[in-house]
Amino acid sequence: MHLSDDGPTLGVVGGGQLGRMLGEAAGPLGVRVVVSDPTPNCPASPVVDEQVVGAFDDHETVRAVAERSDVLTYEIELADPDTLAAVAEETGTPVHPHPETLRTIQDKLVQNDAFAEAGIPLPEYHRVDDAADLRAAGDALGWPVMLKARTGGYDGRGNVPVEGPEEAAAALAEVGAGDDGALAERMVPFDRELAVIGCRGADGQTAAFPVTETVHEAEILRATVSPARTDRATRERAREVALDVLDTLEGRGVFGIELFEQSGAEDTILVNEVAPRPHNSGHWTIEGCSTSQFGQHVRAVLGWPLGATDRRCPTASVNLLGKGEVRPARLAGVEDLLAVQGAALHWYGKREVRPLRKMGHVTLPGDATDIHGADALLSRARHLPDQVTFA
Amino acid sequence: MHLSDDGPTLGVVGGGQLGRMLGEAAGPLGVRVVVSDPTPNCPASPVVDEQVVGAFDDHETVRAVAERSDVLTYEIELADPDTLAAVAEETGTPVHPHPETLRTIQDKLVQNDAFAEAGIPLPEYHRVDDAADLRAAGDALGWPVMLKARTGGYDGRGNVPVEGPEEAAAALAEVGAGDDGALAERMVPFDRELAVIGCRGADGQTAAFPVTETVHEAEILRATVSPARTDRATRERAREVALDVLDTLEGRGVFGIELFEQSGAEDTILVNEVAPRPHNSGHWTIEGCSTSQFGQHVRAVLGWPLGATDRRCPTASVNLLGKGEVRPARLAGVEDLLAVQGAALHWYGKREVRPLRKMGHVTLPGDATDIHGADALLSRARHLPDQVTFA
Repeated sequence: MHLSDDGPTLGVVGGGQLGRMLGEAAGPLGVRVVVSDPTPNCPASPVVDEQVVGAFDDHETVRAVAERSDVLTYEIELADPDTLAAVAEETGTPVHPHPETLRTIQDKLVQNDAFAEAGIPLPEYHRVDDAADLRAAGDALGWPVMLKARTGGYDGRGNVPVEGPEEAAAALAEVGAGDDGALAERMVPFDRELAVIGCRGADGQTAAFPVTETVHEAEILRATVSPARTDRATRERAREVALDVLDTLEGRGVFGIELFEQSGAEDTILVNEVAPRPHNSGHWTIEGCSTSQFGQHVRAVLGWPLGATDRRCPTASVNLLGKGEVRPARLAGVEDLLAVQGAALHWYGKREVRPLRKMGHVTLPGDATDIHGADALLSRARHLPDQVTFA
Repeated sequence: MHLSDDGPTLGVVGGGQLGRMLGEAAGPLGVRVVVSDPTPNCPASPVVDEQVVGAFDDHETVRAVAERSDVLTYEIELADPDTLAAVAEETGTPVHPHPETLRTIQDKLVQNDAFAEAGIPLPEYHRVDDAADLRAAGDALGWPVMLKARTGGYDGRGNVPVEGPEEAAAALAEVGAGDDGALAERMVPFDRELAVIGCRGADGQTAAFPVTETVHEAEILRATVSPARTDRATRERAREVALDVLDTLEGRGVFGIELFEQSGAEDTILVNEVAPRPHNSGHWTIEGCSTSQFGQHVRAVLGWPLGATDRRCPTASVNLLGKGEVRPARLAGVEDLLAVQGAALHWYGKREVRPLRKMGHVTLPGDATDIHGADALLSRARHLPDQVTFA
C-alpha cells in the first residue's frame, strides 16, 4: 500500500464519539484523520484535521473523504457497503474492514447464517416475515423471544423482547421489520454478558483484547469491567469463540464481539452481536491496555503491526447517559468527578443532551495487583455518573 | 472563577508539541483549547479548536486568545510577562502560572537569588557582566564553569561550558549575554541528572510526579527513565527539594524542575533549571502515570482537583531528534517502531526537520512488577529512534 509521503491520512465515515476517539489515537502516530458526518461540528471535528459534511451513504461525501485519504474506514454501521465499494473502485483507496463484511453484519439473518455455517455457537433463531411466522417461532423457541430487525439495528436499537404471541404484530411494527423481515432469537437465560474486542491486521495477524464483562439495562450498555467476573475456562472459551468469529470476517480492523455466558449449558458462550468497528465495550482499553482499541484500529487498517493487547490493570468503565429533556449540553460537576482518584473522563462534546444518549464515559483503573477486585471496582465505577450533570 | 456555560476554554500561548499534548489531554475532559503561535498550522493546531497566528509576545494576539478563554496559560518561556499581565487586567481572564513567576524564571539571576533566599540548594553562581567578571568567577569557582545567559535561554539554549579564562569573551558572545549579563555556575560533577514534575492546584494543593532520571547529550535531553536509577533516600530528597521549589513559585500549574544528583556531597540534590510549564522530562507520564503532566496542568490551571500522580509501571522515554539537513519532515519507519511491543509513538507533526529539533518522542512502559529493570528499559528505549527516519 502506498501512503502519502508526509504521513498517512485515514478517512472515517462517521464522526461521532468513535470517530473522535479514533482521531485522538491517530494524532500521536502522525496519522491525519478526515471524517464525514451529516452534523456540522460533529464530536470528532475538533480533534481531526477535517470534516466533510454529508450523509453516511452519500456518494459524493464518501468520495471526498476517500480522495483525501490513504485508507478509508467507518465507525458506524449506517455506512453503506455499496457506496464504500464503489468509492474504493473509483478512487483506488482501500476500505477496511471490507465492505462485504459490513454488508454481512448489517443483515442479521445473513450474519447469523454465515456464523452458523462456520460452526460458531449462536442462540437459536428463526427468520420471521410476518406475525404468523413470529408466533410460530415463539412457539418453537419458547416465549419470550428476542425480535431483531434484520437491518438498521445497532446498539440495541431494533431489538424488542416479545412476551407472547399476542404481541407479535406490534413488535414487528416496533422493530420496523417492513419488507426486510426480522429474526426471532431464543431468549438466552445468560449469567452475564461478555465482550471481546478482536482485531485483524495485515498478513492475517489477529489479536484479541482481554475478555470484558458488560452490563446492559434496557438494551443499552451502562458499564463494563475487565477481567469479567467469571472463571478462567469461560474467559478462554470466550476468547476462542471471538477468534473464530474474526476468522469468518474479511478485511482489517477492530471488531466488537458481544457474547452471552450461560454456565452449565452445552455451549457456555454464544455470540450475540458483532460490530465491524471499535465498540463501547472496549473504551476501557484507552487506560487499561498497552494499546487502545482505537490505536489498534488505526494500526490495523493502515497495515501497521498490531499493538500489545495486555491488560495493564483491572479496569471498569461507565457510560454518561443523557437524562431529562432535550437541551443544549452543559457539562457540570466535573470537579467532583475528577476528585475521584484515578477516574478518567472522556467527554464526547455532543452539543445536545437527549435521554439515554451517550454523552461520555468514565474509566476507573483498579489496583494492578488485585485481579479479584473487579466486583468492588465495578460498584465504585457505577456511582461515578452521580457526580456529573448536564446542567 | 466563572467558566463558560458549555464547558471551559483554555487559552495557551504557544502551539508547539507542549501545546499539542495539552490539547490532547484537554479534549477528553470537555475543555476546548485555543492556542497562539507565530507559525500557521503549528503542531498543536490539528488537535485544538482554534489557533490565533501571532508572536508569543504580541499584545493583540494574546488578547485575542484571552478573550476566547476562561483561563490563560503558556507553554513556552518566550511568552511575555508584561503582555500576559496587561491582558489579564484588560480581559479579566486569569493567567496561570502567575506572570510574575514567569518573570522570575526568565531571568536566571533573579530566579537563583530567589531560590537561594528560600534556602533551596543550588550550584554556586556568580553574576558576570563582562569577560573580566567571568574570568574572576572561573578562578573563584574553579574551571570549567557553566555560563548561562540571564534571559532567553531554555532547553539548554543559552548555556555554554567555558573551559578556561581564554574562552571568556567568546563564550559571553555565544550565549548572547548582551546588556543583560549572564551567570557563571560551578560545574557540578553530578552522578546523574534528575527531574521532578511538580504541580500546584487550587487552594495550595500540591503534587509531585515520581522522580525521573534524565539523560542529556550536548545540552539536549535525549531520554528519561522513571524510577531514576538511584537510591530511595536520594529520590526522597529530590522530591523534597522539588516541593520546596514549588513553594517559592506563585500561581497554579505544572513546573518542570531539573536537578543534579551528586552523591557524597553535602547537598546531594541541587536545582539546575525550572520551567513554568509541562516539561520534556515528564512526557513519559502520558503512559506511565494515572494522570499525565498535561492533564494535570489542565486540571491545575482550571482550578480542578489534581489527579493521582502514581507511577503505573517503570517507564522510559526517548526523543526523536531531527538529523541531517533542513527539509520537509516525512516520518518513515513507523512500522518497525510499532512492531516493538509496548512502544508508544508521539509524533509532533512539525512540517520541517532540523538538526536536533524535537520531532517526537517514544515511550516504553516496562513490567509493572520489575521496579529494578530501569537500566535495561532505558537501554531498550535508547535504541528505538534507530527504527525511525525522516525520509
